[in-house]
Amino acid sequence: MAVYTEIDDDQLAELLQHYELGGLLSYKGIAEGVENSNYLLVTEKGSFFLTLYERRVNRADLPYFLGLMDHLAAKGLACPTPIHDRAGNALREIAGRPCAIVSFLNGVWPKRPNARHCQQLGAAMAQLHLAGRDFPLHRPNALSVEGWRHLLSACGERSDTVRPGMQADLTREFDWLARTWPAVPDRAGDKPLPHGVIHADLFPDNALFVGDRLSGLIDFYFACNDYFAYDLAIALNAWCFEVDGAFNVTKAKALLAGYQAVRKLGGEEIAALPLFARGAALRFLLTRLYDWLNQVAGAMVKPKDPMEYWQKLNFHRQVQSPSAYGIER
Amino acid sequence: MAVYTEIDDDQLAELLQHYELGGLLSYKGIAEGVENSNYLLVTEKGSFFLTLYERRVNRADLPYFLGLMDHLAAKGLACPTPIHDRAGNALREIAGRPCAIVSFLNGVWPKRPNARHCQQLGAAMAQLHLAGRDFPLHRPNALSVEGWRHLLSACGERSDTVRPGMQADLTREFDWLARTWPAVPDRAGDKPLPHGVIHADLFPDNALFVGDRLSGLIDFYFACNDYFAYDLAIALNAWCFEVDGAFNVTKAKALLAGYQAVRKLGGEEIAALPLFARGAALRFLLTRLYDWLNQVAGAMVKPKDPMEYWQKLNFHRQVQSPSAYGIER
Repeated sequence: MAVYTEIDDDQLAELLQHYELGGLLSYKGIAEGVENSNYLLVTEKGSFFLTLYERRVNRADLPYFLGLMDHLAAKGLACPTPIHDRAGNALREIAGRPCAIVSFLNGVWPKRPNARHCQQLGAAMAQLHLAGRDFPLHRPNALSVEGWRHLLSACGERSDTVRPGMQADLTREFDWLARTWPAVPDRAGDKPLPHGVIHADLFPDNALFVGDRLSGLIDFYFACNDYFAYDLAIALNAWCFEVDGAFNVTKAKALLAGYQAVRKLGGEEIAALPLFARGAALRFLLTRLYDWLNQVAGAMVKPKDPMEYWQKLNFHRQVQSPSAYGIER
Repeated sequence: MAVYTEIDDDQLAELLQHYELGGLLSYKGIAEGVENSNYLLVTEKGSFFLTLYERRVNRADLPYFLGLMDHLAAKGLACPTPIHDRAGNALREIAGRPCAIVSFLNGVWPKRPNARHCQQLGAAMAQLHLAGRDFPLHRPNALSVEGWRHLLSACGERSDTVRPGMQADLTREFDWLARTWPAVPDRAGDKPLPHGVIHADLFPDNALFVGDRLSGLIDFYFACNDYFAYDLAIALNAWCFEVDGAFNVTKAKALLAGYQAVRKLGGEEIAALPLFARGAALRFLLTRLYDWLNQVAGAMVKPKDPMEYWQKLNFHRQVQSPSAYGIER
């Protein structure tokens, strides 16, 4: 939870003058989001979200993220729609930060996702993959194999303070993944595994539901171009484990069935799931480990426990075939 | 800014079952408030505020605060209206905390109040004083003379770490105020100075404006029974000094004129303003000093600078007559 940059009513009134959103009725800093500052705005035209992009977001990536939300919303995907100013810009500046106003989505993220949630999440992810196919911009996944190499080396020996032997074990895992991972998809290339725009961070807190119905996907700030099945593998990790660490194959089946009801997986994608699930587990293990080892004194955000993903990684390491995820080739 | 207690969708859905507010569409933790946890709820019936009362609020006071908001809203004062559950309760519990849902008010608090803001604030305060006259509950002001005595002694010698000589100076000031302060008004008594329900914390961040128009008063969690003119003295301190510490008599005139347009001050109330302004300055100086000297490591709330009120106190100490506040007897 965080508001890193405070803004005042005068700055906000000045910003709103550039939009067709009418006068400001209310704004509240929102205690969520770990990367950016978020405000809920109420104007004469309705409710909106204002995001100020803080230092962890690369400004050069913002046109990709905002363009993608524009593109997906235009295709009918339930996601925040960037509001453009009178000159057509989605990106402006406030308090020295790049910022964007997007539409407000109703919905609540499920703290205890069930199989129905997973099924709908799978379907929405497939819609996202299909809707993104003709999005013209390209952003490589900075948190794929080369990113893991960098994180692993940045954590270094200190990894063993979290768990003895962690550094050596993660190095072995990384080496195996780096050898086995399919070549990074290239925009122009014709790769064996289907790829395109992926969300890359579709955790339960990025999927909103009204009652039992999925009302939208949010937080596209890790979106990039990568394998579709890798996005699914991230979701298997994020949605299908119980609090005690047990894998729930019923939820995995529901997630994959929901996905396949919209976009059928190819045999080679199904075969790649165990590999991608290991890679996805290592990716979140490494970012959490890095944040854990580099805690800022007095920070408002408590880092997440890396050991949760250590457990998940070990589950995937003993998987013999995609059937462990409730899917048959 | 703070959300001290996290709640989840299941807890919230359970809570809402007791109200006639329809289904939950959205909820967001709000990064404001230093005493309680606040959530903005959107339900099928509209927008609402959910407050969870944290440890600094005495549970025994909650019926006074919520009853007062009920009473004032029924009299037409623009303030949050408690929403009652089907059994008629305004107070319920969530996540082990007492909680209440109140109506959502549009408006933005003025970071740089001008004379027009002050004039409207004065008028709204007078409406509050009049509307509260037949409110049947009674709550003594815990932060009047006896409260200051306690804070002064709790700060003790450590006061001198903030400014050399502070302890002795504040003790002299307190002794003078304690001797001079009019007897505490009693519910049954017939006291010389008009008294009744006061807000007791009407700072700019507790007054909302849409454009230039005051849209509501909020945060009644210091409300109590005390002298009306003392409430005005708190507002003179909170609204009529510039950032550089200078007293702005134009704003003070506007505030008092706005007040008197609704409720005329008696001669004895006007005469008491310099005394009450000193008392109000000491009250906020002492609470800030106490919080400054008792900072909690890792707290999310940065304590406010006590020296701001030291400066204000010194201004009031050199005041010779109420005319310094732009008012004539």
